[in-house]
Amino acid sequence: MDGMSGKIPTQQAALAARYGAAVPPTGPWNATIAGLLDHRSVRGYRPDPLPPGTLETLVAAAQSAATSSNLQTWSVVTVEDPAARAVMAEVAGAQKHILECPLFLVFLADVSRNDRLGQAEGRALEGLPFLETFLVAAIDAALAAQNAVVAAESLGLSTVYIGALRNDPARVAETLGLPPGAVGVFGLCVGYAKAGAEGEVKPRLPQSIVLHRRRYDALGEPAARTSYDAEMRGFSQRNEMAADTWTARVIARIGTIRALRGRDRLAAALHALGFPLR
Amino acid sequence: MDGMSGKIPTQQAALAARYGAAVPPTGPWNATIAGLLDHRSVRGYRPDPLPPGTLETLVAAAQSAATSSNLQTWSVVTVEDPAARAVMAEVAGAQKHILECPLFLVFLADVSRNDRLGQAEGRALEGLPFLETFLVAAIDAALAAQNAVVAAESLGLSTVYIGALRNDPARVAETLGLPPGAVGVFGLCVGYAKAGAEGEVKPRLPQSIVLHRRRYDALGEPAARTSYDAEMRGFSQRNEMAADTWTARVIARIGTIRALRGRDRLAAALHALGFPLR
Repeated sequence: MDGMSGKIPTQQAALAARYGAAVPPTGPWNATIAGLLDHRSVRGYRPDPLPPGTLETLVAAAQSAATSSNLQTWSVVTVEDPAARAVMAEVAGAQKHILECPLFLVFLADVSRNDRLGQAEGRALEGLPFLETFLVAAIDAALAAQNAVVAAESLGLSTVYIGALRNDPARVAETLGLPPGAVGVFGLCVGYAKAGAEGEVKPRLPQSIVLHRRRYDALGEPAARTSYDAEMRGFSQRNEMAADTWTARVIARIGTIRALRGRDRLAAALHALGFPLR
Repeated sequence: MDGMSGKIPTQQAALAARYGAAVPPTGPWNATIAGLLDHRSVRGYRPDPLPPGTLETLVAAAQSAATSSNLQTWSVVTVEDPAARAVMAEVAGAQKHILECPLFLVFLADVSRNDRLGQAEGRALEGLPFLETFLVAAIDAALAAQNAVVAAESLGLSTVYIGALRNDPARVAETLGLPPGAVGVFGLCVGYAKAGAEGEVKPRLPQSIVLHRRRYDALGEPAARTSYDAEMRGFSQRNEMAADTWTARVIARIGTIRALRGRDRLAAALHALGFPLR
């Protein structure tokens, strides 16, 4: 039943796809790990519906992830109505895959459920207004969502995270009827990839500058960035993208406030949605 | 080679362990999903070392998770020296499994690598000082870490996240030699569970109040919380924990500022470590 079966790349091939020339030492390996390494974000979907019960299976996987002190400060909303999908796509800067995919989820950092619990019990929860509690909620939402992604991909489905919902959290909240203390931290498209939309596995930075032993060490960074820029230039050329090197992409994405597309106002948006971030 | 083989619970058993009486509709199923549902956090480890290459395999899985705009704003540090382990355990409130486990990782929200890139290229990256960029980094660290957890568990290893490193981010940063713009967002113990330390799968809230269709809907929450409180009371009794219901645990954990154990000062700690959170 595993969607990976029959197309599991060898360990060497999987590591080469992910790291180019900078392949790390090999270690233990199995089909689950092969599936994790084979991930790619997909931005084109067929309209085919998902098998019955898929949503519930993905949510069960998501809820099985660790959650800080079992607080479970996250929720997820399905976006089904075309008008609501159109709002999500517009907020995200006209990403058409949000309209195409059979399942679009918005993951929420959600302290409102805990807040309602406190109110029902006549106890003000003093910890709720703090940045720490928002961060716990956002991290828990991410852990949950990543489990949903792993489950989806194991079933032969594709996904892509939509962080651009944070361009306008208030509009997302209004569209989904969110209570104060709940905010969409990202969306997730789920569905079957269109022919040609799956693309190559994207190379990542060499492990040598992401994994630090004992103490943080940036000495090897300039050389590693040069080699990774070359990997990403090749990947971009083969996959017809705009900017070429990693260096150019990082500068394009966070070089200017304008490139944040409204997310420079995230703190104010969160305040307005019931997160004082004290 | 998959550590789950031979002990895959049936779908019904897995859902019942996770949801008690509130079992959701069944859907597609495979060994990877069974592994996700079988997760439990483990707080007791044997000293046995991990097979060679395990760390590199976990990091390859982690780096294969999606990362916002491929910015890769996270890093991971191994904590190996006994003195450094002792600091981590102390910061986390004397959690002895941090001393026991053969591998202890600290996941960083890390914008310092992008910052060094900008400096080397003579370009100030205007987007770096914003709350949005810190949030991207924390979410990316969480997505990466969850992939590492899934990979570890697929190999028969156990894990537990250590959010309590946020009790004192400055001490963690000093111990690991972190540059400005890097902060430990959580730790992760990895190793083989001691006999008896694996415990039961912990029940979660019914899907009916975590999964919202079309719009957020909290109407069913009081009834769902009553039934979940009963599930958690049973779980606590069987596993000899202190507080009994979920309601009691939520109030204990975030009812008071004191219970945050210093994390009420997280915003100030982040400012001091190079995250203006603008």
